[in-house]
Amino acid sequence: MSANTVEKFNALVKRMKQIEEATAVLIWDLRTGAPKKGVEQRSEVIGMLSGDVFKLSISEEMGQYLEVLTQSDVMESLDEITRESVLERKKEYDRSLKIPPQKYQDYVILTAKAEYAWQEAKANNDFDSFRPYLEEIVATLGEFIELWGYGKDKYDTLLDQYEPGMTVAKIDEIFLPLRERTVALVKLIADKEQVRRDFLNQAFPKADQREFCEFILRQLGYDFEAGRLDESSHPFAIGLNPGDVRVTTRFRADDMQSSLFGTIHECGHAMYEQNISGDLVNTYLATGASMGIHESQSRFWENMIGRSLEFWNRYYQDLTERFPEQFAGVSVEEFYRAINLVEPSLIRVDADELTYNLHIMIRYEMEKDLINGVITVADLPRIWNEKMEEYLGVRPDNDTNGVLQDIHWAGGAFGYFATYSLGNIYAAQLEAAISREIPKYKELVAAGDLTELKAWLTDKVYRHGKALKPAEIIYRATGEEINAKYLIQYLESKYQSIYKI
Amino acid sequence: MSANTVEKFNALVKRMKQIEEATAVLIWDLRTGAPKKGVEQRSEVIGMLSGDVFKLSISEEMGQYLEVLTQSDVMESLDEITRESVLERKKEYDRSLKIPPQKYQDYVILTAKAEYAWQEAKANNDFDSFRPYLEEIVATLGEFIELWGYGKDKYDTLLDQYEPGMTVAKIDEIFLPLRERTVALVKLIADKEQVRRDFLNQAFPKADQREFCEFILRQLGYDFEAGRLDESSHPFAIGLNPGDVRVTTRFRADDMQSSLFGTIHECGHAMYEQNISGDLVNTYLATGASMGIHESQSRFWENMIGRSLEFWNRYYQDLTERFPEQFAGVSVEEFYRAINLVEPSLIRVDADELTYNLHIMIRYEMEKDLINGVITVADLPRIWNEKMEEYLGVRPDNDTNGVLQDIHWAGGAFGYFATYSLGNIYAAQLEAAISREIPKYKELVAAGDLTELKAWLTDKVYRHGKALKPAEIIYRATGEEINAKYLIQYLESKYQSIYKI
Repeated sequence: MSANTVEKFNALVKRMKQIEEATAVLIWDLRTGAPKKGVEQRSEVIGMLSGDVFKLSISEEMGQYLEVLTQSDVMESLDEITRESVLERKKEYDRSLKIPPQKYQDYVILTAKAEYAWQEAKANNDFDSFRPYLEEIVATLGEFIELWGYGKDKYDTLLDQYEPGMTVAKIDEIFLPLRERTVALVKLIADKEQVRRDFLNQAFPKADQREFCEFILRQLGYDFEAGRLDESSHPFAIGLNPGDVRVTTRFRADDMQSSLFGTIHECGHAMYEQNISGDLVNTYLATGASMGIHESQSRFWENMIGRSLEFWNRYYQDLTERFPEQFAGVSVEEFYRAINLVEPSLIRVDADELTYNLHIMIRYEMEKDLINGVITVADLPRIWNEKMEEYLGVRPDNDTNGVLQDIHWAGGAFGYFATYSLGNIYAAQLEAAISREIPKYKELVAAGDLTELKAWLTDKVYRHGKALKPAEIIYRATGEEINAKYLIQYLESKYQSIYKI
Repeated sequence: MSANTVEKFNALVKRMKQIEEATAVLIWDLRTGAPKKGVEQRSEVIGMLSGDVFKLSISEEMGQYLEVLTQSDVMESLDEITRESVLERKKEYDRSLKIPPQKYQDYVILTAKAEYAWQEAKANNDFDSFRPYLEEIVATLGEFIELWGYGKDKYDTLLDQYEPGMTVAKIDEIFLPLRERTVALVKLIADKEQVRRDFLNQAFPKADQREFCEFILRQLGYDFEAGRLDESSHPFAIGLNPGDVRVTTRFRADDMQSSLFGTIHECGHAMYEQNISGDLVNTYLATGASMGIHESQSRFWENMIGRSLEFWNRYYQDLTERFPEQFAGVSVEEFYRAINLVEPSLIRVDADELTYNLHIMIRYEMEKDLINGVITVADLPRIWNEKMEEYLGVRPDNDTNGVLQDIHWAGGAFGYFATYSLGNIYAAQLEAAISREIPKYKELVAAGDLTELKAWLTDKVYRHGKALKPAEIIYRATGEEINAKYLIQYLESKYQSIYKI
């Protein structure tokens, strides 16, 4: 009987995944040039299909299969993939059923309204107009946490949505030394002579930028037979299935960094999804292990490879051949320093690799305190500005460039920000393991041979999809639990060298 | 009770249409650059969604609603759109339910295999290897006709699939004079000096072709806020909803006719769908009235406008500015004659406007005789070649360029070909009506002002979608039933002038 149930369960999950794949194509299409007069109708179609998947995820049918398949003797008889697939669906099922449907629907409407209110508030530098929405979101998340249940810290329940198994206790322990050492390093850099980067902001014809991005994607090993590069206002990568993982970028006429490093970043996400094992297709395991592990790959490729001197020792000539006038008289070392310029600034998405984590920590600390009732929504603008001053030495003179800059909170995405820095931390741990296991890896990068590196990452990370937990992936790949040691070492070594500290 | 049933029926139909819209986006995506490694998985998704729509179309639920809503007293109480929508679905429901599911599934598999066999047979000039498939298709269609029922002629039942209400009796009556007069005209032209067209086959950079196609699309009134132009190996137009109707074309490096007139052709299809009344959205009436009426619009815009002297009197300067070297020393009259060159040839898709209808009639006559058992599949190559000789004065020396050239029969699309010429006939009737009702319309075309023309077509044709039958549309718009008089007049007048007959 359970064999039959396994088949039915897999068929139901496959159906859900197939509807989601169709929906994802529609979303990709909307973001890459769908005509605007069709958007309203298309959004309804997306809503209908998403609703179908949600209904299936909490259907009586699903409930029956999960009840059978999670019995311990049945569970033991399942193959590994099916077992993980059942557990993954069971977690979602329980999570969804714990929230009364009306409450959840109200929340969806609330966040939709809040996103609109946030846009207005940001445009008008008017936090107070956004405040009631944010207060209601925080209150609702508080109710959800009570319904979902929580362990040591209420905020853990939110973190777990994006980074399964991650806790406040763990993050606090990791972030503290990273923050202290980063703040110290940023201060040292502030006393040093700044590097040049004027040559990065010139006229760069879009068609040339595009061709260079395509060239770099091919060099990195992005498979164009399993993907494509398009333009969108916000760059993204989207995995429809491992044979179709698309990336987008945006081209700015006077800035080649934006398209190039945006492309490499999304390429990291995409190569992860392109190399997920075929066994996992048509299950919910055919995706990244977590937001943090996913981000570790975009950051690894963008920063540790794409902003390394070895990489540009190999490709700078190609760049200067494509843009001979723009880089006339600029050495590869000057280029390398320019793309790694450190400068405390107000806006997270424009921040450099070093100061970026400080932007994240500010948000993480405030979210945690908000959810635990230590601070209130009304306190946010003041605390934001104080922390910016303390960690980064800059203070926004309005909320538009401060507490209102990100969309995340308006969408209810509390627990998400931390994963950006977890990604950097994981990336550095993986990089250290690679250095040990492929001692010549930097020489290989300098020679443009990324095969071994890609194979290692595929073996340790990519192929497993979501069949392993983030902590398992990191432990198996590096022999250690998550810790900030390697990121601190990497950042200090890199920036002390660049700034001659 | 019936009000409630109306609501439920409309909701069910809306759901089906929404799934079909998602499926159509997936199909568009597959044809315009989806990465090949994702195609197999994507095809499964399309199959799943299409299967869902089919199941809904013959579901018990649908059956119940149709039973209630087609009762004569209920029917009378329905608003016009709902009534037509109910009748449209009822026809599909009856049609689908009359075929035993297993028989239909076998037929789908047969045509899939036959398309593959046809490709091989065409590549190898081997009709005999394709013959058994075609025999089985013809036999199966014969069984379907028995199950569906038929009136005076068995073939009427197949015609009705593509051109509701059309019959053999009617087509025979219309095609005969068209054939005789066309054959005569083609013979007269053969004795005349041929016009130049060497300048059409030169190097035309793709980017310039693309820009010119976009320019022409805008001039014709294609709404880019409700559509987009992409590339595909076979040009097509696809209406996702009236706010999103996309066109594609293909660019040949040495031929600007292909992309330009392909684009105008698809633009005609697309403007039809862009201007369907919003009331019809989410019903099966939000599409063209028939294949023939749809084709009348692609042909009207491609040939009657896009290949007219008035049109090029307005736009030839734009063309020569875009391609100054290619058209150096070529007058607008020479260009006009070149794009209207008449020359009997073997391949339908490359045929000119005049001889095209003869290609269609050959296929129509053979299909009709095949379905009625007058001839057999084995006779096809011989009869094909004889008719080519008789109507066009050219004879293929192999089946690849003869009976094997089209995919239609392999897909079971018997009854389809005739609609291409019906489209030309409708187009000429509509053009004659326009000439009467907007006497200055050719001057307006020459002035680049197509507003009134578009408004007339929208009022008479486009807005009605499938809510009116083809015959109703033509009678209301022109005051006459379908007849070939206007097409004959148009062709004779145009080509006698071009060839100075």
